[in-house]
Order: sequence, then C-alpha cells, then structure tokens
Amino acid sequence: MLARESEMRLPNPMSSVPAFNPLIEQISPPPVPSVQAWARAYDGAKGPLIDLSQAVPGYPPHPKMLHLLGEAASSRASIGYGPIEGDGILREAYATHVSEVYGASLASGHVHITSGCNQAFICAIMAVAGAGDTVLMTNPYYFNHQTTLAMLGIATKLVECRAENGFLPTAADIEAQIGSGVKALALVSPNNPTGAVYPPALLAEIAELCRSRGVWLILDETYRDFLATEGAPPHALFSRPDWESSIVSLYSFSKSFCIPGHRLGAITAGPAFIAQVAKVMDNLQICAPRAGQAAVATALPLLADWREENRQEILRRAKALSDVMHSVSDWKLDALGAYFAFVRHPFEGVGSAEVAEALAKKAGVSCIPGSYFGSGQEQYLRFAFANADVDGLTMLGQRLSSFTL
Amino acid sequence: MLARESEMRLPNPMSSVPAFNPLIEQISPPPVPSVQAWARAYDGAKGPLIDLSQAVPGYPPHPKMLHLLGEAASSRASIGYGPIEGDGILREAYATHVSEVYGASLASGHVHITSGCNQAFICAIMAVAGAGDTVLMTNPYYFNHQTTLAMLGIATKLVECRAENGFLPTAADIEAQIGSGVKALALVSPNNPTGAVYPPALLAEIAELCRSRGVWLILDETYRDFLATEGAPPHALFSRPDWESSIVSLYSFSKSFCIPGHRLGAITAGPAFIAQVAKVMDNLQICAPRAGQAAVATALPLLADWREENRQEILRRAKALSDVMHSVSDWKLDALGAYFAFVRHPFEGVGSAEVAEALAKKAGVSCIPGSYFGSGQEQYLRFAFANADVDGLTMLGQRLSSFTL
Repeated sequence: MLARESEMRLPNPMSSVPAFNPLIEQISPPPVPSVQAWARAYDGAKGPLIDLSQAVPGYPPHPKMLHLLGEAASSRASIGYGPIEGDGILREAYATHVSEVYGASLASGHVHITSGCNQAFICAIMAVAGAGDTVLMTNPYYFNHQTTLAMLGIATKLVECRAENGFLPTAADIEAQIGSGVKALALVSPNNPTGAVYPPALLAEIAELCRSRGVWLILDETYRDFLATEGAPPHALFSRPDWESSIVSLYSFSKSFCIPGHRLGAITAGPAFIAQVAKVMDNLQICAPRAGQAAVATALPLLADWREENRQEILRRAKALSDVMHSVSDWKLDALGAYFAFVRHPFEGVGSAEVAEALAKKAGVSCIPGSYFGSGQEQYLRFAFANADVDGLTMLGQRLSSFTL
Repeated sequence: MLARESEMRLPNPMSSVPAFNPLIEQISPPPVPSVQAWARAYDGAKGPLIDLSQAVPGYPPHPKMLHLLGEAASSRASIGYGPIEGDGILREAYATHVSEVYGASLASGHVHITSGCNQAFICAIMAVAGAGDTVLMTNPYYFNHQTTLAMLGIATKLVECRAENGFLPTAADIEAQIGSGVKALALVSPNNPTGAVYPPALLAEIAELCRSRGVWLILDETYRDFLATEGAPPHALFSRPDWESSIVSLYSFSKSFCIPGHRLGAITAGPAFIAQVAKVMDNLQICAPRAGQAAVATALPLLADWREENRQEILRRAKALSDVMHSVSDWKLDALGAYFAFVRHPFEGVGSAEVAEALAKKAGVSCIPGSYFGSGQEQYLRFAFANADVDGLTMLGQRLSSFTL
C-alpha cells in the first residue's frame, strides 16, 4: 500500500502521512534482480542460458569447503556473538595470507572481517565520510558504490576512465577532481565493470597523490585472486611506511571460495582505522556470521592449490572470450580483465538496457547494461565471463553473430 | 598508528592527513567488550562468574537446530547469493509465524530478512530518516539505537521513562517531543534495558498519535518470545487498517533460537517499506547469510514447543531474581521484564560504571552500567537475568549482600 493511497482514506485531511527518506526513495531498485528477470523470460530457443550477469563463480565450491562450513555451522562454537572485528582465527589467517600476497608485513590488527565486500565498502566509507562530504569514484563505477554513497547523502565526483586508456584513470584527472570536502577516492582493481587491472606504478602514483592531499584511498580488490600474473603482488601500497594513515583495501571471500551466500569479506587497514570500523560494524550487525569465519580460516591455506587451479581456469575463459569476440564482427572487446569484460555493442544510439534486455530474452545471453555503471556507458555491456565455462563462451559467438534487436 | 603521529613524521608540514568521519570518531567504542574485560579481570574468589551482561541465552540451542544449520551450511543450495529481501522459504515461514503471534494477516511480502536486529534497525531508520532529521527515542534507550542514529548524523530527542511509571513512556510525553523534522519514534518492547513490557493499549495510543503526526513507529520486539502472557498477542497494531503506512516491527532470531552467531533478524512492514529496505540492504550486504535462513525456516514450526519451554524457564528465572532481590536490602528491583531487570544499586552518588566494574572484578557479577543507556541512569544497572540459570541467580543474593565498593 502506498502512503499516498492510505492518506486518501483518512477522515482528517490535515493529518500528515509518515514519509520515506528521499535519499533512499530516489535511488533505483537494486539492478541485479531486474536483469535476472530478463533472463527468466528467455524461452530457451537458442540453447541454454549463458549467464554473464552477476559476478558469481561458475563452478562449485570445493567439497572440503562445504564440509568445513557444515562442521562449523553445526558446532556450538559458532552460535554465540563473536568479536566485532572478526574471529581471531580468521583475522590471523587472513593477515598471514595478505602478507604473502603483497609481500608485506600485515598483522591481525590490520584486519576487520565483514559480511561481504559491499559491507566492507560501506564500513570504510562511513569511517571517513558523512552526509555533505564528497567521495571520488571513477566513471564507470561499481553501481553499489554509487548507491551506497547516494543513500548516505555523500556527494560524488567522477574521474573519467576512457576506453583509449584501457579504462584506467590518470593521476592528473584524479588531481583535477580533488577539492575541498573530498574525503576519499574509491577505486576497484581488478575493475568492476571493465576488468581493467590497475598497474602497481599507477596505484603508487595515486596513493602518493591521495596521501599528499589528505584523501583516503579505498581500494576494492574483490577480484584480486584472478589476476593473470601469478605470484606478482597486485601492488606495493602496503610497503609504504605511512600506508596505515591513508590506504584501505577491501576484499571478498565470496568469489575465490565460491561462497557468496555465506557473506564474508575483509577490510585491511591501520589499527586506528579498524577501531573506527568496529564502531560502525557494531551498529550494522555486531559481527559477521561466525560459522563461515571458522571454515574460511581453515580453508585459506588448505585450498590454495584449488584456488590457483581456478585462477588458471578463469584465464582460459578470458582467452576463450577473447577468441570468440574476434570472430564476431561489430562487437568490440574494449576491455578484458580478471573477471569481467566491457564489451561495445554494435547498436549505435540504442540504450544498453534495451540491448541487454533483448540479448537476454531473445538470445539467452544475460549481462548487465553499461548504463548501470555510469553515464556515457550506453554503448557498453558488462560480461562477467568468469561465470561461464569455455563451452558456454564458445556458444556465445554464434549467439552474438546472429543477434538482432 | 594514529594519523596525528604519522603527520609528525612527514617531511612536508603543509601536507594534510586523511581524517576520520567526526560522527564516527565521536561515538564511544562498543560498550560490551569493555564490560567483558571487567569480567575477565575477576579472579573467581567468590565462585563462578555470574554473567548478566550481554543478552545471550544462557542455554544451548536445540540439537536439531545445530543439525539443521550444519545441513544447510554444507549444502550447495546455500552457497549462492539469495534474494535481497530474504529467502522465500523463511519469509513465508516467518509471515505464518507472526500472523499467529499477532492474530493478524501477514504475508511474505511484509517480511525482510536481515543479519540480526541491529541491522533491522539501521535498515528501518535509513528508510525513513537521513542526516539532519530527528528520531525520537526513550530514555533509557538501547545503546546501539543511539549510536546508530549518531553515526548517521540523525538528531535524537528523548522521551523520559520514569521508574514510578514502570519505565513506560506516556503518549503525552511523546506528543510533547514531536516537532518538525521528527521522522520516527523508536521503541523497544519488551524493553531493553529496563524489561518493561508496553501494554497493547499504550502501543495503540502511541501508534494512533504517530500516525496522525506523520511519524513512523519503529518497534523493536527482539524479546517478544519471552513475554509472561502465553498466547496473548503482544499488541494489535497489525490489525489497524492503515498499519502498513506507519508501523514497522523488528525482530531477532538470535535470542529465541540461541543462535546470535548466525546473525538473523527480520523486519515486518508494508510492502512499500520493504521495497525501500531492500535498496538499503543491497548496499549493506546484498542479502543475509543463507544457511541460517534455510535452517530457521524449518526450525520455526519444528521447535515451537522447545521455545515455549524456554519461555517458561525464563519466567522461572525472573521469579528467582525477584525472590533474591527481595532478600537483598538496599538493592531495588525497579523493573523486571521479559529478559532484563533494571536494578537500583545502593551507592548514592557513585557512577554506575564504577559500580559495575567493581561488581564484576570483586564479586564476579557482570552487568551493564545504567549510564550506557542514557543520561540520568547512574543509579541503575541492567541485569540480563535470562542469561543465568536459577542456581546462578540464587548465588547472586549473597554476592550482592556482601558487596562493597
């Protein structure tokens, strides 16, 4: 029932009706369910649905992971509230892991466990910015970053990432946008939606800039485990002597362990930052769910080889997509990265939502319209290619070639 | 490392240091860990610790609950993202349950699943209020409600609840505080911290007032399953024809099922309200963890008798506490309700934190200082008596009688 309707039924026309927060009313409904609805409307005429929409791993978790989750969830050790910052066992295990990944010296006090990376983002943002402040993002951006900032009344300024620069921002473009009231710069590398991988030197340059201008660098590294360069650290930011006072890294266990439904993520930051995040988390949900924390703490070292195999598999999928797209005239693979590709569709002047809807309903290819990631992205579609196996991606060529609006 | 320290080490004294959000910096660290630290400092001299601090059930979950959790967590059905609003199976089961509890007609579309009741609260608040708006609370209040509003930049106005009125607010006092900018009234019944149970007639009167003044009534009913009156609905608000446009009820599965570590709560509201909450939840964490949702959906009807036995047990604990407190001179049981008692300590002029700290460290009785729940509460301590069994509560008498500061 809408508030307005019930008002009409009231005897006293002077009485007012409780209203919604306009900041929440104004943000669009979550985009993924609407994209999923398009896919459900596909009749299967072209073969099985190729789902390149939501970033969920296209393979199951390791049986040992399921066993660990079941064991932890049925244990009395998981039933009580845990420490707000996360269970010590997972903070330790993750600190050890990130120390290896980055070749840096990180301790459990640098880690805060969250319920997934969206929560890591909102915790990090709230720790540094409130209504009326400004946060810089790239365009295109990850849509939940934009809606999170909008619902908190935080203004955004955008740094354009252009196809001709591999969808990377430049430090000069970032600097031009830093002004009074800018509290943080939010970046995503490997990028969602484009897949662009930010080179360590670029990140170092941006970090230096942010630090010198009093701006937090909040770096979402959800897709870091799928980088093409085996063993090379994604960046050297954690080796900067002053990193704790200006750099925050976000992560999700959902993708690497194929367990998004268990909602686990992490923030890596200085202890003073973690202390602020704990205050936010206490109000958001006291602590992350505990069974998953226990299970992942064990799985982090145990399933390292399995994760490496998956990285290789996703590289094969990237190759398969690249091969397929070369065979499809008119469709252009403008960016291809760790998990996503940003694809230029051939229908000039047609909106990306219209193209994506038709592609799902008529060709059985589900993906997310570029326009959901920012303005000026109407020519693009995001393909979460890691969701599909090589066979599925091979089929994609024919689906796209024969597709008409 | 504190930002200020690192600034001192910088070569360029003109460079600015990234700062924290003052709204977050200003809120106190979460209070429960500090109370737990006092309890850890107790040397056991007076016998085992009597933990009346955090509201966690003092008995284990049903073995069937643990089995269901283990089964769901090890299932591939729980690994993916679920619907933002919650899994259909739990929304259905909970709608059926609350329809019975309230004698009302509630459907799954009235239910949004969250990660616990703190998250239900912040979702509900954000749906109706933003920075600069005002929300009414009672004094004393549940401290996480206060810190949640403070960190969002939402102003609060307080309605005094006096001991002589059983810590119930009056509609007149609420009306006096409603002014421009007031978007919602947040109440807790059965109350945390006092235990006061708000009579249905009072809630009806308050609901009518809120509705007529355009103010949402957000009612936290986390402790509803421990009411003394078996089978009687906690209130008749869901039978009001216009309830969807002004009333929101919050709930936690943590207490009744003894599974706080699995983080599950629920919002009951009109579908238009649920649609706003879904936008907030998508940004907070996409969806609540799924294994717990599947398990609780089965457990809701299955463990009804077990929950009823626990309700009876907690009533026995309330009786035991009441008996004990009558035997302790100087200590006054000013309120005793479904889960909590609000106890007046005998040390006039001494702060409640000082009393609670000494009580934990010297007498092995852990509880939360009244001052944590609002101003003017220095004479009080919150006893979460439901945490302790009858034997523990019987020991409490001697501990309090022999206690000196």
